[in-house]
Amino acid sequence: MSQTYGQDPAQVAVERDVTDRVVASFAGAASPRYREVMTSLVEHLHAFVRDVRLTEEEWTTAVEFLRGCGDTTTGTRQEFILLSDVLGVSMQTIAVNNPVGAEVPGDLTPTEATVFGPFFVDGTTEVPSGGDVTFGAKGTPCLVEGRVTDTFGRPVPGARLEVWEADEDGFYDVQLDGFDGPGSMAGRGHLFSTDDGSYAFWSVLPASYGIPDDGPVGDLLAAAGRSNYRPAHIHFMVTAPGMRRLVTHVFVAGDEHLATDAVFGVKDSLVLDFTEQPPGEAHGRHVDSPWVRTRFDIVLAPTTSGGDT
Amino acid sequence: MSQTYGQDPAQVAVERDVTDRVVASFAGAASPRYREVMTSLVEHLHAFVRDVRLTEEEWTTAVEFLRGCGDTTTGTRQEFILLSDVLGVSMQTIAVNNPVGAEVPGDLTPTEATVFGPFFVDGTTEVPSGGDVTFGAKGTPCLVEGRVTDTFGRPVPGARLEVWEADEDGFYDVQLDGFDGPGSMAGRGHLFSTDDGSYAFWSVLPASYGIPDDGPVGDLLAAAGRSNYRPAHIHFMVTAPGMRRLVTHVFVAGDEHLATDAVFGVKDSLVLDFTEQPPGEAHGRHVDSPWVRTRFDIVLAPTTSGGDT
Ligand SMILES: [Fe+2]
Ligand SMILES: [Fe+2]
Repeated sequence: MSQTYGQDPAQVAVERDVTDRVVASFAGAASPRYREVMTSLVEHLHAFVRDVRLTEEEWTTAVEFLRGCGDTTTGTRQEFILLSDVLGVSMQTIAVNNPVGAEVPGDLTPTEATVFGPFFVDGTTEVPSGGDVTFGAKGTPCLVEGRVTDTFGRPVPGARLEVWEADEDGFYDVQLDGFDGPGSMAGRGHLFSTDDGSYAFWSVLPASYGIPDDGPVGDLLAAAGRSNYRPAHIHFMVTAPGMRRLVTHVFVAGDEHLATDAVFGVKDSLVLDFTEQPPGEAHGRHVDSPWVRTRFDIVLAPTTSGGDT
Repeated sequence: MSQTYGQDPAQVAVERDVTDRVVASFAGAASPRYREVMTSLVEHLHAFVRDVRLTEEEWTTAVEFLRGCGDTTTGTRQEFILLSDVLGVSMQTIAVNNPVGAEVPGDLTPTEATVFGPFFVDGTTEVPSGGDVTFGAKGTPCLVEGRVTDTFGRPVPGARLEVWEADEDGFYDVQLDGFDGPGSMAGRGHLFSTDDGSYAFWSVLPASYGIPDDGPVGDLLAAAGRSNYRPAHIHFMVTAPGMRRLVTHVFVAGDEHLATDAVFGVKDSLVLDFTEQPPGEAHGRHVDSPWVRTRFDIVLAPTTSGGDT
């Protein structure tokens, strides 16, 4: 199928007319923003159909794919989020809502954001800075420390840091048999930065893991010849008054999946060395086995520099 | 939220990088066509997110909308087809697959195509040309007659015409209580054109009807201030050896919903006068109440002029 049909004036007119009529149908929307969003969506979806000369058989395949995503979705499995993630739509949305460059005041670049993912849980346990959020998660002890500042380098005390991660087998607590809420949370918790903006917590070295591949999104990855793996990471959500909420990860340097993250979440600035340490004293506790440590300094943008959250 | 973020060079680079990485991830697809389609889809979806500066809250709304479509879909209700229909994606696909203009040989323009819809049923009863496909459907008797030709005006004998329609209450047989397959089919059937390409059948005058509006697609229409109604029509699917399959409707002139068809299926060339007739003899039978008649001449394109079916 060539694109010559799209170049015949009569054919171009027929195709354009369809789009014009659909766009016009949103002219009466009560919300100007709804009209704006739907107009752009219609223009882009129609342009996609025209550009690839989508066949009717392919259209049917697409509709059945979406039906399959619906069938796969449950209370704890959201195939449409996975779909958005593997198509990079999630990361594009994050990019749009976390502006960099000239829009942000000060000398420092805000810490880059990445995908939220499906494994956040509300109501975690608070630990003091320097405390331990392992709560039984399996893995090599891991110390993360750093400082929270604004884009002028000034400390941000009292910033709330929510952290969550997979264990050494690549599983989050919520994926383990027997998980039943707050009492069985592991590898997650929250803490606050201190007066000079610094923070530290103990947990375990995370492992890489595969996103669910037994649904339509798994079929998509297979058809694309893509891996379903995510490189090892620790999730952060950092909030402080007057600052833009930061949702991000730190990645473990050297992970074999860094270049092929299934959801495109990796940014160079977020890849950190987790250096091996011998057993001994560390940050106020004795570790009787090898452990790792990393440093993650966090720069928050002011809320006035864009983003909706 | 302005589009200025998209114009800052550093921000443009961040956003473009996301798209480039996702496009690159499809480079290894076994099928070149899959790679082509997914590359275009990714480019257009990302451009949509950038163009409207989609907020994270709007992204969440979109994901939940798709979840709702999945929840609404059953064996007999396909919300994703409705979604494609009300966004005009179905009609754009049909336009792409039914080229007009310079691509088609001969003097005559092929009859325009429109949406297939969800109410086709396989295995209908055959009637002779001039026969009756009413089978108990309620409504004013209606005679449809015409001729099937190619784009040079030559008759196409033996063309198979599948026809189906809603009754005077706007319901298809499959929507009525007690429908249980072939024995209860009504307002549908198939026939073949005769040696000179002509055909005729009796049925009932169809009524306009609303597409299901109790799911997410209904919410979309409400937010857009749009009607869920389709103007009265009779569906046709016409097939003949060597000819492109034609899926279309004829619409009833004067219907109040012609300009606001919820699925954008109306084309001027498909709107026909259904003229009222007094009781009496007509096409070999006696009708003892007022009835209507219309004429629908059908021009089929050769299979060589594009389209996948
Ligand atoms: Fe994760
Ligand atoms: Fe219909």
